[in-house]
Amino acid sequence: MKDKYILLATCSDKVGITSLITNIISEYDSNILHLDHFTEYDNAQDTEGKLYLRFEFEKVNLLKAALEKSLSENNIEFNLFDDSEKTKIALFVSKEDHAFNEVLLRVQRGEIAAEIVAVVSNHENNRHFAEAFNIPFYYVPSGDSKALTEQNILDICAKHEVELIVLAKYMQILTDNFVSHYPNQIINIHHSFLPSFIGANPYKQAWERGVKLVGATSHYVTSDLDEGPIIDQDVTRINHRYNVQDLRKIGRHVESRVLAQAVELHVQHKVIVTNGNKTIVFA
Amino acid sequence: MKDKYILLATCSDKVGITSLITNIISEYDSNILHLDHFTEYDNAQDTEGKLYLRFEFEKVNLLKAALEKSLSENNIEFNLFDDSEKTKIALFVSKEDHAFNEVLLRVQRGEIAAEIVAVVSNHENNRHFAEAFNIPFYYVPSGDSKALTEQNILDICAKHEVELIVLAKYMQILTDNFVSHYPNQIINIHHSFLPSFIGANPYKQAWERGVKLVGATSHYVTSDLDEGPIIDQDVTRINHRYNVQDLRKIGRHVESRVLAQAVELHVQHKVIVTNGNKTIVFA
Amino acid sequence: MKDKYILLATCSDKVGITSLITNIISEYDSNILHLDHFTEYDNAQDTEGKLYLRFEFEKVNLLKAALEKSLSENNIEFNLFDDSEKTKIALFVSKEDHAFNEVLLRVQRGEIAAEIVAVVSNHENNRHFAEAFNIPFYYVPSGDSKALTEQNILDICAKHEVELIVLAKYMQILTDNFVSHYPNQIINIHHSFLPSFIGANPYKQAWERGVKLVGATSHYVTSDLDEGPIIDQDVTRINHRYNVQDLRKIGRHVESRVLAQAVELHVQHKVIVTNGNKTIVFA
Amino acid sequence: MKDKYILLATCSDKVGITSLITNIISEYDSNILHLDHFTEYDNAQDTEGKLYLRFEFEKVNLLKAALEKSLSENNIEFNLFDDSEKTKIALFVSKEDHAFNEVLLRVQRGEIAAEIVAVVSNHENNRHFAEAFNIPFYYVPSGDSKALTEQNILDICAKHEVELIVLAKYMQILTDNFVSHYPNQIINIHHSFLPSFIGANPYKQAWERGVKLVGATSHYVTSDLDEGPIIDQDVTRINHRYNVQDLRKIGRHVESRVLAQAVELHVQHKVIVTNGNKTIVFA
Repeated sequence: MKDKYILLATCSDKVGITSLITNIISEYDSNILHLDHFTEYDNAQDTEGKLYLRFEFEKVNLLKAALEKSLSENNIEFNLFDDSEKTKIALFVSKEDHAFNEVLLRVQRGEIAAEIVAVVSNHENNRHFAEAFNIPFYYVPSGDSKALTEQNILDICAKHEVELIVLAKYMQILTDNFVSHYPNQIINIHHSFLPSFIGANPYKQAWERGVKLVGATSHYVTSDLDEGPIIDQDVTRINHRYNVQDLRKIGRHVESRVLAQAVELHVQHKVIVTNGNKTIVFA
Repeated sequence: MKDKYILLATCSDKVGITSLITNIISEYDSNILHLDHFTEYDNAQDTEGKLYLRFEFEKVNLLKAALEKSLSENNIEFNLFDDSEKTKIALFVSKEDHAFNEVLLRVQRGEIAAEIVAVVSNHENNRHFAEAFNIPFYYVPSGDSKALTEQNILDICAKHEVELIVLAKYMQILTDNFVSHYPNQIINIHHSFLPSFIGANPYKQAWERGVKLVGATSHYVTSDLDEGPIIDQDVTRINHRYNVQDLRKIGRHVESRVLAQAVELHVQHKVIVTNGNKTIVFA
Repeated sequence: MKDKYILLATCSDKVGITSLITNIISEYDSNILHLDHFTEYDNAQDTEGKLYLRFEFEKVNLLKAALEKSLSENNIEFNLFDDSEKTKIALFVSKEDHAFNEVLLRVQRGEIAAEIVAVVSNHENNRHFAEAFNIPFYYVPSGDSKALTEQNILDICAKHEVELIVLAKYMQILTDNFVSHYPNQIINIHHSFLPSFIGANPYKQAWERGVKLVGATSHYVTSDLDEGPIIDQDVTRINHRYNVQDLRKIGRHVESRVLAQAVELHVQHKVIVTNGNKTIVFA
Repeated sequence: MKDKYILLATCSDKVGITSLITNIISEYDSNILHLDHFTEYDNAQDTEGKLYLRFEFEKVNLLKAALEKSLSENNIEFNLFDDSEKTKIALFVSKEDHAFNEVLLRVQRGEIAAEIVAVVSNHENNRHFAEAFNIPFYYVPSGDSKALTEQNILDICAKHEVELIVLAKYMQILTDNFVSHYPNQIINIHHSFLPSFIGANPYKQAWERGVKLVGATSHYVTSDLDEGPIIDQDVTRINHRYNVQDLRKIGRHVESRVLAQAVELHVQHKVIVTNGNKTIVFA
């Protein structure tokens, strides 16, 4: 496996963009390993189209600078990642451990190519599991001052150069101020198939409505609770025999895998957030 | 295959009910072919439990009368069906034909053991398909008076001794008066995963929210629009490439099979509606 | 919606291919609407990689000739399709009608953008349905001579300029000679999750083995029965209550949608068959 | 939640069996909480039917003895379980940890109501995880004598009064002698959708065949490798982009949940193995 770069690029759609980028890459004798391309024309409103691109290509000397120069000159928004550099993750968790365990174990097995640099929790019960894998565990209880607590957590994240925060059943609401430090870099798992059953106790709501499927939704956190861009969703079939406790159990399994899947997609740089509060997922 | 009866029974849960029924059945030397049993204790409120039973057993002389007598004396609500008698269905449809085609063809193939006795539509375009299968087609346009139109339709249903009305994309809202003639005997297909995207244009809503799954819901019609007891639900995975038209296309396939599945379950007498506006589905 | 071309291209992977093609397209001021790219390096054997590309781009004067010239000069295998030209399909069917009905109805609704130009059957029972949609129906019973029968069918296909043959439960085995006339242009539906339960009576085999899911597989027909490149597969959950007849019923629904899905993918020019007897599906 | 018994019963189907059992239960004033009933008539051969029953009912003094007496007198095979007594599990694992982690964590969370009394492995790498949960870990390397090694393991299981052995990716083949000690009490996870890709390296086989779904199968171990009664199966959708390593990763997730699901069903006493090498799963 050769070293490679991953490029995410977005701009107004027009003739020649893909050509421009592929020309630079081939000029430096780098082979394109993967290319995803998506054009969205908003059929609801009279706006022009947007182009979203993702490239994987061989890492070659001087290519990076050349690309950055050209993309900037052409007003193309972009992110260029060196695939060998693993995303630094902070896992936030409260008492419930299922989603936390799942993400941590998938990272440990190398299934998610990332590095968990810190665990932050407002409870002590998950310390043992984190430390068994030699991951620093920070107990940050909700104090009198939300501002102080969050500053404390921001300091931890800054110290560890955190690039992605994963809320693995972290039952604290983050302030807009906190969220603004990590735009599209905080992933949450919501215990329902959004937009159904927004808010508290979705499994009880689901039981009362008598739905035949229960689901979970992973999404980026924005200032609008439960309204951030959806990354992944899945459901499981249930029936009348499931009581609220059963739904919670079944729900935990869906939550765990939907969150882990979103984290994997993010660290592979396969997710782009659009202006329309949606995601492009080049899976 | 021997002839058989199907019994649906509901009562307050207490010791001895199943024993009571099985004793009568075995007394008449009838073999139980299938037995479903469900007890629901509402954990939200302090109410007593409810027992729901479904039996399939061999048809034997005199057994029917004996069962009816005993169940009545013991205050057990019940429905006793002769499995050889096919449910008489009226299919209601507007312009869109996918769900209508699916239900009709499954009945024709014998996959759904029922009889379609009439097709009612406020458009003419599906006449041809119905008549190709020798099913009477009634064109009932929405007239000036909703009351008159509905009376017209009720007369058609009465004439054909309709036992189940299937709304296969029938884009007219039925009045409470109409619905009251067929309690838990009208099945609708809703083009979303309820309770998400209630109301008009759910596929556009789904596209705008950027969900990763779209679904459909079949439910009994009550006076509360989109709030009737859910019989079946299913979803299909989508991605950012699907525009609103694509969602509609994909949605049609889910709608067709979720409606057909609900109709099959109903005519097999596998669905019981509970007081809590939910269904028991003994599938 | 502007007119567009669809290009499928395959060649040995090397630097500059994507650049070459995108340059020609942009030179003619045509916008790329969609681009799929896949490189396969066989990790089993020590072979070089293969590049598979699919482009959708605006139809522009003179562009076609320019592309064809350049691709040929560069030894790139390709197919260039005008998206406005619908694929001409011949549907082959025996007695069972479910897959036949499904494909035909999806085409009629415009869900599959193709044209059914002929129905060929060794039974008469599906004539009525085909003719109700004004599609020519050819009754070609299996005669004494397989060679004559197949020549008869080849003549029908030639007359209608058939580009894709869909075996919608056509229970006749086609000879190698017949298949050789339509390489990767004959799609079959196999009533099992291949490679399980190859051969006759797969539902009985599935029942005897006690599997918990039954499936269906759509594939291109090659001279090797049940071994052609797989286009799509799906499964449905079953349980011990399903007898062989139930499995057949459930199976029909999976078969119908897996076949229809394969036909849709094919006529959208989204499927490429690799040397390794597999398909690339740019879905 | 009251204490309860769970009864599994099997016999030749005839009139009066369900009545007999429900009469005894109600005689002792015990309420039936759940009742599953299945009759199988082999349509392939001319044999009489078999009846399979599962009851959950309140634990009441003297009821147990009365039931056992009556069932024995009537030649009904049965198992009567006290629901408060947790099944004692030995987890067997080799190097790969995913299925092992999943089963262990679900038991720890109380999602699977069982007790893991021992972990047996031919490798040391999973010792740490087992011991972190205070579960005895036995390192039993494959020695010169398979007979001695297995006797060693049988002694460990006997010492801990093991009732269920779970092979969570235990890459040693058990001898018929070993298996005969735990009939229908050893659950294995097979890394394919059986009966596809029997044998070694199923993911490579799947990749080479180009299937569009990969699956996993949990089954009871019999002397016939890969042929034991199937408990659960599931699949995940894949596409041409997945190489063999990706299939292994995806496969691990399916394996983990299909094995955990089978263990949960088993310890809830919801699985009955039939003469026909199949399972009844009262889920």
